[in-house]
Amino acid sequence: MHCTNGKKVYELCGCEAVYTSCVYLMRYITGCEPENGCVIVDKTGTTLYTDMRYMEAVEKFLRGTDVTPVLYNQKELLNRLSSYQSVGISFNQTAHIEYLTSENAGVKMVNVDDALIKAMSVKNEWELANIQKACTLAEDAFLALLPEIKEGMTEKEVSALLEYNMQRMGAQGLAFDSIVAFGAHASVPHHETGTTKLKFGDEILIDFGCKVNGYCSDITRTFLFGDDKKHAEFKKAYEAVLGAHNLVQERLVSGMTGGEADAIARNYLTENGYGKLFTHSLGHGIGLNVHEAPYARPNYANILSDGMVFSDEPGVYQAGEFGIRIEDTITLEKGKVKSFMFKTDKKLVIL
Amino acid sequence: MHCTNGKKVYELCGCEAVYTSCVYLMRYITGCEPENGCVIVDKTGTTLYTDMRYMEAVEKFLRGTDVTPVLYNQKELLNRLSSYQSVGISFNQTAHIEYLTSENAGVKMVNVDDALIKAMSVKNEWELANIQKACTLAEDAFLALLPEIKEGMTEKEVSALLEYNMQRMGAQGLAFDSIVAFGAHASVPHHETGTTKLKFGDEILIDFGCKVNGYCSDITRTFLFGDDKKHAEFKKAYEAVLGAHNLVQERLVSGMTGGEADAIARNYLTENGYGKLFTHSLGHGIGLNVHEAPYARPNYANILSDGMVFSDEPGVYQAGEFGIRIEDTITLEKGKVKSFMFKTDKKLVIL
Repeated sequence: MHCTNGKKVYELCGCEAVYTSCVYLMRYITGCEPENGCVIVDKTGTTLYTDMRYMEAVEKFLRGTDVTPVLYNQKELLNRLSSYQSVGISFNQTAHIEYLTSENAGVKMVNVDDALIKAMSVKNEWELANIQKACTLAEDAFLALLPEIKEGMTEKEVSALLEYNMQRMGAQGLAFDSIVAFGAHASVPHHETGTTKLKFGDEILIDFGCKVNGYCSDITRTFLFGDDKKHAEFKKAYEAVLGAHNLVQERLVSGMTGGEADAIARNYLTENGYGKLFTHSLGHGIGLNVHEAPYARPNYANILSDGMVFSDEPGVYQAGEFGIRIEDTITLEKGKVKSFMFKTDKKLVIL
Repeated sequence: MHCTNGKKVYELCGCEAVYTSCVYLMRYITGCEPENGCVIVDKTGTTLYTDMRYMEAVEKFLRGTDVTPVLYNQKELLNRLSSYQSVGISFNQTAHIEYLTSENAGVKMVNVDDALIKAMSVKNEWELANIQKACTLAEDAFLALLPEIKEGMTEKEVSALLEYNMQRMGAQGLAFDSIVAFGAHASVPHHETGTTKLKFGDEILIDFGCKVNGYCSDITRTFLFGDDKKHAEFKKAYEAVLGAHNLVQERLVSGMTGGEADAIARNYLTENGYGKLFTHSLGHGIGLNVHEAPYARPNYANILSDGMVFSDEPGVYQAGEFGIRIEDTITLEKGKVKSFMFKTDKKLVIL
C-alpha cells in the first residue's frame, strides 16, 4: 500500500478545502499522478478527478486508500469549489489562467504554499523508504558503471550507461539529466554533459539520481581515471571536501538552522584555505522534487528537524583546473544524521 | 548557429514587450534554457536574464545571435517591465504568484497565449532539422533494439535498452518516459511500463521519442514477438490501422482543418468496422513540447498549414485483448505530408 497525505495537508492548511492540479502535489496527496487530473481535500476526505483514459488504472491504484476517484467535469468541479468559504491553493504551482477561471466561477482562494512546503519537507516512513530505494539504486548503478568506463568514451556515453543501469535495475525514471564532467569541465558546477572524450589521468565528476514512486535520490562522486601524477592540488582539495562532507554528517543535529549546517562545511573549508572556492550552498531538500525545502545555505534561518531529507554536498571549484563535489542524500533521525548512501567508497577512487 | 525567435514573437504578440520565465518559451525565443532565467523581447531586441552560475555558458552560447545576456536582478527587471505600456505574458505558463509580484510592481500585463501558440506551431528550417534528427535517432535506436529483444525480458528492461540506445547515439534527452506494453497491456493507450515478462507470441507496442536541441520526436510501433498463430484478429486490425495511417499521409493537404485530418483516419477505420475501437484522436502537435498545438481531432476547426509538425497515430484497442497504434511524426511541406520517419518498416514485423 502506498501513502496518502490528504489528511496531513488538510490539517496544516487550515482551509475548508485544498485544491491542486499540480502534478507533484497531486502525487504527494494521493500517491499517483495521472497526466490529466486534480485533487480536492476537505473534511470528508480526498477526491482525485481524472478523465476516462486514466480512470481504470487510478481506481485500481487507489483501492483501499482514503482517496476517491471521480470523473472530471469542469462545471461540477467549479461548483464544488465555489461552495467552500475558502479554498487553499498553491499560488506558486497554479497557472494564472487557472486562477482566473476559478475566480470567475466565484471560488474564494487563499495561498497555502507555506503549509504545503511544511507538510512536504518532513517525510513519513513510506516516503523515507522510497528515497532509500532510489539512493540504493543510484549507488548500485554507479558501482556497475565503474568497471565499464574506458579511455575514449564520451561524457554522454558514460551518462547514457549510468542512466541505463539505473533504469534496468528498476528505477521509475531519472531524477534529472545526469551531469558527467571530464577534466576541467568539473570546475563548472552545472556543466552540460557533452561529447568530450575521456583521457588517461582525467578526473571524472558525476552528479545523478533516480526516482522510486516519485521520490528522488541525488548523489555526486568525483574520482580519477588513472593517476598521471599531476594531481597533487586535486588530491589536497579532495581531502578537504571529503573532510567537510564527513564533518557535516558527524556534527549536524536536529534543531540547527540551515545556515548552521552550511557553516559546518564552510568553516572547515575556510580553515583549510578553500572557503572562496566553495561557490554554492551545502544542500537542498530532496523528495518528490530533486530541489525543494529545506535548504542548507548561509543565513538560512529555518530549522532542520527529524524526517527532513536533504543533500550534503560541499564542493571546491578551481576554474579551468578541477572541480570536486561529494554528495550524499541524508536525513535526520533521532536528532542525528543518517545517510542513505553507504555502498560507494568516498575515499578517492583511482580507476 | 542555433535559431532565435524573439522577432517573430514580438511581431505576432503586438505588445510593447513580451516577458516570460517559462522554460520552453525561453528556449523558443533564445535557443537556450538556463535552469534559472527569464526573457524580455521588445523593439530593441531580446534580453536573457540569468544568474552567475549560468552566465559563462549562456554568453558563449549566445555569441553572434540577437540575444543579449544580462545578470538577473529582480528590482531592475521589475523596473524595466513596469516602464512598458503593456507586457505580453503567457497566462497559461505564468504562476499566479509571479503575476501578483509583477502586478504589485505596477506591470501592466495582457495574455498573449494565442499569439505564442501561433508562433510556435509553424516551424522554421532549423526547428524542422532538429525534429528530423530526433526522429532519425529514435528510428535508429529502435532498429538497434529489435535484435536484442529476448523472451523473459521485462517491459522495463526493453524500455531501458531503447532509451540507452537513443542516449548513446546522441539524443539530448528523452521526449517522455517510453511506453512499452506486452500482450493485452497494449490495449491500454497510456499503459505504465512495468515488470511483465515477454512470452513467445506476445504483441509488443512501443511509444517513445527523444530530444535534439529541445525539439522532440514521437513514434509508436506495434509488432509480434513470434507468431503463435492466435493473431488472426490482431493481424486484421493491424492492416486496418496501417491503412488509416498511410491514407492520412496520402490524402492530408495543407488547408484542411484538424477535424478533417482526423476524419480521414476515422472514416477509414469506421468503414472497416473499427471506428468504435479508435478511442483517441489522430494526432497532436510536436515541437519543444511533445504535446502542443495543432491538434488533429474530431471537430477541431484550426487549419493545418505548411511547417506545422504533428503526429499521425491512429489506433485500435480491444480491451483485454490487444492494442495497435502506428505513429509517425509528420509535417506539411508544399501542401503535402512529409514524414520524418522512413527507416522502420511499417508492414507487420514478426520477430
